[in-house]
Amino acid sequence: MTLHHPTVEELELEAVLHALSDPQRLRIVRVLADEPLPRRCGSFDAHVTKSTLTHHFRVLREAGVIRQQEAGTSRLNSLRRDDLEGRFPGLLDAILASAPHAAALV
Amino acid sequence: MTLHHPTVEELELEAVLHALSDPQRLRIVRVLADEPLPRRCGSFDAHVTKSTLTHHFRVLREAGVIRQQEAGTSRLNSLRRDDLEGRFPGLLDAILASAPHAAALV
Repeated sequence: MTLHHPTVEELELEAVLHALSDPQRLRIVRVLADEPLPRRCGSFDAHVTKSTLTHHFRVLREAGVIRQQEAGTSRLNSLRRDDLEGRFPGLLDAILASAPHAAALV
Repeated sequence: MTLHHPTVEELELEAVLHALSDPQRLRIVRVLADEPLPRRCGSFDAHVTKSTLTHHFRVLREAGVIRQQEAGTSRLNSLRRDDLEGRFPGLLDAILASAPHAAALV
């Protein structure tokens, strides 16, 4: 299965803001921002069901906030930092600077 | 009737991002950002019903994005620019820089 990712040109501000307007998704992004390497979905202890977590990752991917790669039975997640910065300069940094640190999630 | 406005300390990033994740609300904010004086709700030609527009203004006010003052039978709206900048530095500017100009709405 190929996972759909919007191109940089397809990124929409409203969709990105919506994706980041949820506390769980904001925390996922916060963790990925601190992470040099792609991270498995299962490594997020998010205190929600697996299907809810899968939903959150999908919203983030479809908005273009994260990239997901299949890796065996798992998915690896990484932040599309450069793409977001290119399209919406300063936005992600401003959000990350304001978002609470998510050490508890790691 | 006194309209409730969150204090600066009560502003929540998720609520602000949610408020700004809607195209109509983003356009309202864009117009207010270009406006030196408070602006009546009725002055926004938003191509939506009055009740939908009232809803959008309420979401923006409750998130702390705008301030609404009663003025006779009308409400005057202004952007809480300094409050937002103080709490979430750079966020509003990054969003406004990325949001399409809303000349058509004025």
